[in-house]
Amino acid sequence: MPSWQSEAVATMYRAWTEELNNPDPSRQEPRETNDHWGDLTAEPREVDYLEREIDGAAVLWVEPRNARKDDVLLYIHGGGFVGGSLYTHRKLVGHLAKTAGIRALLVSYPHTPEHQHPAQLTATSAAYEWLLDGGVEAQHVVFGADSAAATLALATALRARDDRRAMPAAIYLISPWVDMTVSNASYELNAGRDAYFYQDVVKGLAAMYLGSTDPRDPLASPAFADLAGLPPTYIQVGGDETLLDDARNLALRAEQAGVQVALDVFPGQQHTFQMAAGRAPEADDAIRRFAAWVEPLLPAAPGIEIPR
Amino acid sequence: MPSWQSEAVATMYRAWTEELNNPDPSRQEPRETNDHWGDLTAEPREVDYLEREIDGAAVLWVEPRNARKDDVLLYIHGGGFVGGSLYTHRKLVGHLAKTAGIRALLVSYPHTPEHQHPAQLTATSAAYEWLLDGGVEAQHVVFGADSAAATLALATALRARDDRRAMPAAIYLISPWVDMTVSNASYELNAGRDAYFYQDVVKGLAAMYLGSTDPRDPLASPAFADLAGLPPTYIQVGGDETLLDDARNLALRAEQAGVQVALDVFPGQQHTFQMAAGRAPEADDAIRRFAAWVEPLLPAAPGIEIPR
Repeated sequence: MPSWQSEAVATMYRAWTEELNNPDPSRQEPRETNDHWGDLTAEPREVDYLEREIDGAAVLWVEPRNARKDDVLLYIHGGGFVGGSLYTHRKLVGHLAKTAGIRALLVSYPHTPEHQHPAQLTATSAAYEWLLDGGVEAQHVVFGADSAAATLALATALRARDDRRAMPAAIYLISPWVDMTVSNASYELNAGRDAYFYQDVVKGLAAMYLGSTDPRDPLASPAFADLAGLPPTYIQVGGDETLLDDARNLALRAEQAGVQVALDVFPGQQHTFQMAAGRAPEADDAIRRFAAWVEPLLPAAPGIEIPR
Repeated sequence: MPSWQSEAVATMYRAWTEELNNPDPSRQEPRETNDHWGDLTAEPREVDYLEREIDGAAVLWVEPRNARKDDVLLYIHGGGFVGGSLYTHRKLVGHLAKTAGIRALLVSYPHTPEHQHPAQLTATSAAYEWLLDGGVEAQHVVFGADSAAATLALATALRARDDRRAMPAAIYLISPWVDMTVSNASYELNAGRDAYFYQDVVKGLAAMYLGSTDPRDPLASPAFADLAGLPPTYIQVGGDETLLDDARNLALRAEQAGVQVALDVFPGQQHTFQMAAGRAPEADDAIRRFAAWVEPLLPAAPGIEIPR
């Protein structure tokens, strides 16, 4: 049975659903101040946060006090391409980095509906290129992403592969949404369990992201990509998610393409339940599993100190 | 009429009152993860946060991107001596520092019930001494504090005065609680308006803080101190607070002692309503007033870059 602490995630999603169905126009906050998603997460503590820019895009360096300085988690925040920010995900990424003992570079990208595919991919690819061009060896870089951003993490790696750039050491995906046809069977299977990501909601997000792009375009919708050559990939998903099949199908296709892949389904959990880190035992367990999984994939020999 | 955004403060306090009166022992979080107070505050953005230690106590450097580096707001967080943290007040102090265009040093101190007066004052005095001993001129230092911490800010200045150390440039107090006898008339006057700080709640906090100390001890209860020699002092208080008279009496006594003092009462507002910064117009207005007030009190000539 899910812990009461992890129920806070479902409670917040139900409030979002209520707000979506019964909007109160007199009480709308500007999008840029609406950072409540991150309220789910406890403070990781003993982590520094430094806001910088890469190619004009805001990024947040997340630096746990005792982190190694030669490895970096390049983390892309989720939010359906329309929301989320450096601030909603600051604490989640703080927990990931602190538990893994490495620094993180949390990146931002242009949001929908103002900006459509491939503007998001252009930005996340630029952040990875910035690291490589700065002398960082790809084997010291881990990609991390949740929800819609899993599409960006995979597409960034696929584009790098196609451009014959080096692959990162590993890819870590939380509740990946990677199929823009929004047609998997789990939308129906978990319609009564998922507190927010109803099929019509996700279809609306996909339409804003795609514009005129084919929903089967492999870079817009990596569920349809040839995944061969990707580095080891670890997927975590909540058992109650309508996006469950996005995760399961991605794991299957990755395995068939020869990728070293691991999938963990967390029973009774919601989309990106890891946001309850520091409070819900399931979230903390998932983060510990990430840290234990990634540790042997990073070089034992020290690399360069990654510059900000 | 108070803005709907500022009502979030009263809503949170009512939930605290409810929790206090009907605790659910099966749903208690460890004190160190319970950071929800700060959820009231929007992200200031473009501010860096660096956690360090001074004499073994955790402090947070709050550094707005374009802040001058020669002035510092030494900020002591509130929380009834029993709660609050670097994390609950991170964003509030970010707004204060960013609006004033200076850096802030947010300090922590031992909490009750484990530690009683004067352990808190010892810690905050040590932080001020650390700045002065590091070569910082006192005229470049502003004290800031809210609620119970106003007692600490005043006592830190009074102790420095008595020790013939230099006074800071200014003292800024939000909703000061400075009278440990907990007997002012506003406890009754505003009992129906204040959403949390009922007289018996505040009496309980005072008892934990005082231990065997006299509630009229001037360093434990600066409402009873000789305030002569304090620097310019600015007090903000919500009109609906049970602590209203703590602010009004303090302003009166400071003026009688020859201190240059300003008091702003914000009608219809709750205790530390500035926590809604970035969302509630009243909070943003209060913070702008602080910035406008403090600016002419800081030296025009540049000082040393304050070391971390």
